[in-house]
Amino acid sequence: MGNSFGTLFRITTWGESHGAGVGVVIDGCPPNLPLTAAEIQAELDRRRPGQSAIVTPRKEADALEILSGLYEGRTTGTPLSLLVRNTDQRPSSYDEMVEKFRPSHADYTYQTKYGRRDPRGGGRSSARETIGRVAAGAIAKKILSLTGGVEIRAYVAQVHDIAMAARADFPSLAEVEATAVRCPDAATAERMIARIKEVRSQGDSVGGVVECRVRGLPVGLGEPVFDRLEADLAKAMLSLPASKGFEVGSGFGGVQLKGSEHNDPFVMREGRVRTTSNRSGGVQGGISNGEELFFRTAFKPTATILQPQQTVTIRGENTELAARGRHDPCVLPRAVPIVEAMAALVLLDHWMRHSAQNRTFPF
Amino acid sequence: MGNSFGTLFRITTWGESHGAGVGVVIDGCPPNLPLTAAEIQAELDRRRPGQSAIVTPRKEADALEILSGLYEGRTTGTPLSLLVRNTDQRPSSYDEMVEKFRPSHADYTYQTKYGRRDPRGGGRSSARETIGRVAAGAIAKKILSLTGGVEIRAYVAQVHDIAMAARADFPSLAEVEATAVRCPDAATAERMIARIKEVRSQGDSVGGVVECRVRGLPVGLGEPVFDRLEADLAKAMLSLPASKGFEVGSGFGGVQLKGSEHNDPFVMREGRVRTTSNRSGGVQGGISNGEELFFRTAFKPTATILQPQQTVTIRGENTELAARGRHDPCVLPRAVPIVEAMAALVLLDHWMRHSAQNRTFPF
Amino acid sequence: MGNSFGTLFRITTWGESHGAGVGVVIDGCPPNLPLTAAEIQAELDRRRPGQSAIVTPRKEADALEILSGLYEGRTTGTPLSLLVRNTDQRPSSYDEMVEKFRPSHADYTYQTKYGRRDPRGGGRSSARETIGRVAAGAIAKKILSLTGGVEIRAYVAQVHDIAMAARADFPSLAEVEATAVRCPDAATAERMIARIKEVRSQGDSVGGVVECRVRGLPVGLGEPVFDRLEADLAKAMLSLPASKGFEVGSGFGGVQLKGSEHNDPFVMREGRVRTTSNRSGGVQGGISNGEELFFRTAFKPTATILQPQQTVTIRGENTELAARGRHDPCVLPRAVPIVEAMAALVLLDHWMRHSAQNRTFPF
Amino acid sequence: MGNSFGTLFRITTWGESHGAGVGVVIDGCPPNLPLTAAEIQAELDRRRPGQSAIVTPRKEADALEILSGLYEGRTTGTPLSLLVRNTDQRPSSYDEMVEKFRPSHADYTYQTKYGRRDPRGGGRSSARETIGRVAAGAIAKKILSLTGGVEIRAYVAQVHDIAMAARADFPSLAEVEATAVRCPDAATAERMIARIKEVRSQGDSVGGVVECRVRGLPVGLGEPVFDRLEADLAKAMLSLPASKGFEVGSGFGGVQLKGSEHNDPFVMREGRVRTTSNRSGGVQGGISNGEELFFRTAFKPTATILQPQQTVTIRGENTELAARGRHDPCVLPRAVPIVEAMAALVLLDHWMRHSAQNRTFPF
Repeated sequence: MGNSFGTLFRITTWGESHGAGVGVVIDGCPPNLPLTAAEIQAELDRRRPGQSAIVTPRKEADALEILSGLYEGRTTGTPLSLLVRNTDQRPSSYDEMVEKFRPSHADYTYQTKYGRRDPRGGGRSSARETIGRVAAGAIAKKILSLTGGVEIRAYVAQVHDIAMAARADFPSLAEVEATAVRCPDAATAERMIARIKEVRSQGDSVGGVVECRVRGLPVGLGEPVFDRLEADLAKAMLSLPASKGFEVGSGFGGVQLKGSEHNDPFVMREGRVRTTSNRSGGVQGGISNGEELFFRTAFKPTATILQPQQTVTIRGENTELAARGRHDPCVLPRAVPIVEAMAALVLLDHWMRHSAQNRTFPF
Repeated sequence: MGNSFGTLFRITTWGESHGAGVGVVIDGCPPNLPLTAAEIQAELDRRRPGQSAIVTPRKEADALEILSGLYEGRTTGTPLSLLVRNTDQRPSSYDEMVEKFRPSHADYTYQTKYGRRDPRGGGRSSARETIGRVAAGAIAKKILSLTGGVEIRAYVAQVHDIAMAARADFPSLAEVEATAVRCPDAATAERMIARIKEVRSQGDSVGGVVECRVRGLPVGLGEPVFDRLEADLAKAMLSLPASKGFEVGSGFGGVQLKGSEHNDPFVMREGRVRTTSNRSGGVQGGISNGEELFFRTAFKPTATILQPQQTVTIRGENTELAARGRHDPCVLPRAVPIVEAMAALVLLDHWMRHSAQNRTFPF
Repeated sequence: MGNSFGTLFRITTWGESHGAGVGVVIDGCPPNLPLTAAEIQAELDRRRPGQSAIVTPRKEADALEILSGLYEGRTTGTPLSLLVRNTDQRPSSYDEMVEKFRPSHADYTYQTKYGRRDPRGGGRSSARETIGRVAAGAIAKKILSLTGGVEIRAYVAQVHDIAMAARADFPSLAEVEATAVRCPDAATAERMIARIKEVRSQGDSVGGVVECRVRGLPVGLGEPVFDRLEADLAKAMLSLPASKGFEVGSGFGGVQLKGSEHNDPFVMREGRVRTTSNRSGGVQGGISNGEELFFRTAFKPTATILQPQQTVTIRGENTELAARGRHDPCVLPRAVPIVEAMAALVLLDHWMRHSAQNRTFPF
Repeated sequence: MGNSFGTLFRITTWGESHGAGVGVVIDGCPPNLPLTAAEIQAELDRRRPGQSAIVTPRKEADALEILSGLYEGRTTGTPLSLLVRNTDQRPSSYDEMVEKFRPSHADYTYQTKYGRRDPRGGGRSSARETIGRVAAGAIAKKILSLTGGVEIRAYVAQVHDIAMAARADFPSLAEVEATAVRCPDAATAERMIARIKEVRSQGDSVGGVVECRVRGLPVGLGEPVFDRLEADLAKAMLSLPASKGFEVGSGFGGVQLKGSEHNDPFVMREGRVRTTSNRSGGVQGGISNGEELFFRTAFKPTATILQPQQTVTIRGENTELAARGRHDPCVLPRAVPIVEAMAALVLLDHWMRHSAQNRTFPF
């Protein structure tokens, strides 16, 4: 259980790191959407390992096949099944993982919960699982873009203790993609990259913060009281491997302000109700208010490091683990398209839910 | 849509601040649980306004009635319907709210989303809605307690810029309840209370952070990849009025550590696999690992303040609002039982889901 | 579990026959719908016992209270909570039911499943539970009627072996309500009533068939492959107390035809695609085709009879039961508004689902 | 939407008749179940076309691949993704179907609902879609069998007007499989086969009734009030292509009985509560009562016939259609494994739901 996400635009992902492949089934995709495998592939390529010197060198093309739901280049309203075959399967690299629980990985909890696990490359708990999310998110992003021009932009705002300054304007995709670390501030990006290379040389790892901004949203997305927009975004982000925190608008920092400093005054601007500040982060009462959506997700340092660590075996013996093999010293650059994908899935699903209740009937 | 929470222990809440009442229907409650209205009432009394000098003076008994699902003092496995009538209905205090959108409240978004709203006391977006959550959570807490002694303890860890020091041992309920602000550190609590009184005298408000710790959990709760334990907790917390952030374990602070500093080493202790540190916060790979669960939720300063604020009317005219009436300068003390309730709902639901898949069959 | 129905227009019912009351929470009702308690009451009155000489004499006003979701006479888009207090509680009539399992009732299965049950009047398994369905269905019916004039008409087509002749035209509500048995064919109705009186005088009971026809539906309702329109209707009907069968269009009788006799030819009529016959019953491939929807539901004879019956006690002793007290010799007349309500709930939910996927986006 | 089925053992199917393939994702499968592709293949082979002279000659191996969720021969508790590639794709046979709506098929409703459809072989509405159901059902059947020996047996009870006599004992699998028509009464089977051959020679088709019996069920499966066991079975059966009716126990025939004739008396037998008759069909109050589960499903005559039929084109012109190509004169024999699969899915899901609420906690 737990491998489906969404209510009306509903995805179900499956697959392990070293099984036959990974994939996703999308149920509820609107019909008549023009769609090609290449469009989805472009997003997968942003997530793919081996893109640059600072991410894991696993070499896989991650070539996408659309198995169903498409006819003559357009969606048919029936389920889309998307498949990426695993090709770079080197189980021999992972022999030690069969025996020893890797600290701060999912080995121990999977083994104990299910009484069994696929240990090759982390099995289901591998970040490779996110391929399905990114593929589905690519479609959601396209639909949102076609529907009034919603634009979703995630980027790396912090790596270890190196943070970019808050930025007023909306970063362009080109700025984000300009550097290997996907931080739109070039100078900060350079320092981040240096830091990542430094910890990699130590066999160590670092985490960071991904920020996400969305513009072009209508007022009204979010279904109180439980399915508030920020609640579903929080769930989406905390469902990502290695994520440890989520904040929207002023977030934890907002605690330092008084109400008189924190409240966003309303004002009429160009015939629309606007706020003069945006500490709400684009949601009020769980519903989008038409301002820019703004949220941040914290990712811990990668659990896989190349230094010896204390751990136990599956037979309950104390031991030491010295990981070898592939090593991604910082997941942040590759987390960017994943954050965008999950945001798109939440927003599209809420768009459909909002429409169903509020736009379907004439009264 | 959006007023149900949970999969197997599923609650549906309803009600507005100044309608006939508020309530909750619980579907999936295990049968044969001994239960009285008084037990639930005790938790409602912790949430109730008017408990102390630092919270809103709204005076309501919030008397609970159990309408169904109970027979001769035990649950029957059929839905429990719980009702609290509204009694302190003073719509006259709120006339201005009909006309003007209160900044950083839900007035504008509800009005725009639904084309209509009950403006009295915030209607559905009032924190009064959480009564149903607390009532259902009281039952979930009791079941968890009966099942192996799971203990959930939330408390106020920060108000404005006043934070208690990190604390190694598990705070007792008595310590939490000892002060009006529900901070288990008495000296810090005193300073928090002074700050709250100070901002109240200014007609202003403050926010803060609630920490929650859970001990006694088994290994195995959490359903990857989307319904990870921390993902559902994040959703639960971000579904609360005024919440702006969530973090589990090391959270946003963990970003400052390297992997070698952040990973939790495994070790055998008393025949069990344990970790020597707990930056994971009790979850690994989305599944509880048997260590103490630890998470934090940020709440913004109360949006209602008694200072004049710039806003617009429902007809789109710029205006000024000077709120009168009840005013809760800090929601944190009353948020404590609500956080506990939501945590209990998530944990019990996951306990049942885990059991269904992993404990039902003999292979 | 199992007390909610619907995806987007979602109801959750609760309550036992002799508890404090019964009710329903409706989540997802579109906002701005004009609504009064009196409109809902009118449907409840059709379901109410004591309407005529041929149904159970239980005397309850079944007075409805709307607790939430309504403001100034219109729905607000937030949950509607509807409550009917139980008033005619005579537990003394049911002492024997505490001890002995009534044959073909739910006593034994509830007791065994849950280890406990409320035996008063059948508790949760009482047909009184359907009050919440009828109340919610009244709202769904109103919305469907406002949306293009969908009209739902159920009626009693058979009682015991007395069946009305197939009827080409759409029966009017007045015709259905003209007789106590709710059969629109007056002569057949008279014979049905005589049969019901006859079996009642014997302390016996009879069942029958309710037919339901719906006109004014658009093409497109139904979500293959599992949530086909007829699949959800079948579930809705088989979820009713005492129902034993469902058929759509030609149903079981269609088995006697060859394909060349059974297929419905397409033809253009007034610019629309129509069929010249309707053995499909208004659905093809699980989706409404714009023809009249037609389905039938079989109800068994009421399990409560006043003749002595062989049974066992809750302690596992063979015994005899001779029911006393209220006795409804035929549920069919009261099943008519319930069938209509469930049909309305299915159709409205599918209307909203169809719109969300197919009408929300401009491509 | 609508392509998932089940709550805890949840399947999502995808695929079109002439796309790349068809498949299913199973979420919630218990871990540690021994499983091979061959076991599933055996059930697929029962469903496969081309098995005998009386079914469609489409020649496909329908070779199953398990893409995920299995490790070293046992399930891991993570999603199982099952894939069957389409191999016999002869789109040229279907050119006419692009232009003309086939009577009593889903062509017109799909085209109108979605504004587009894959016309090749019926696309998503093809019975080929049921491959995923049968594959998932094979796993559910195995689990049920391992868990206390639940046995599910479906068979063809009627073809056109040829019905087998009611049979007291439980038919063996060998008896069912002994004839091409899957009727366990050999003499009746012979007549059925003759009838099917006869209508085939006329280019016509026939329908029939599949009966299903389940023994070995515990008391307690079913979740009133909406998710009654028979309600979910009814939905499962009416979700099958070509099904038009469902009845449980006495069904429509039970209407002819009085309550005194219909009720099932309780009696103690071998220390257990039993009934002396089984007109309830194994369910009372929506919950299994430990007796044999018995239900029947009506299937209409195959819509594809080789006689000329009146219809319209996608451009709204009256025309005539004379189908050519493959033609399955009677779906009944191949419906047998599909009915069993759907029954298994419903029963296993309810087993897990029942356990979660009633077996998880010690009170």
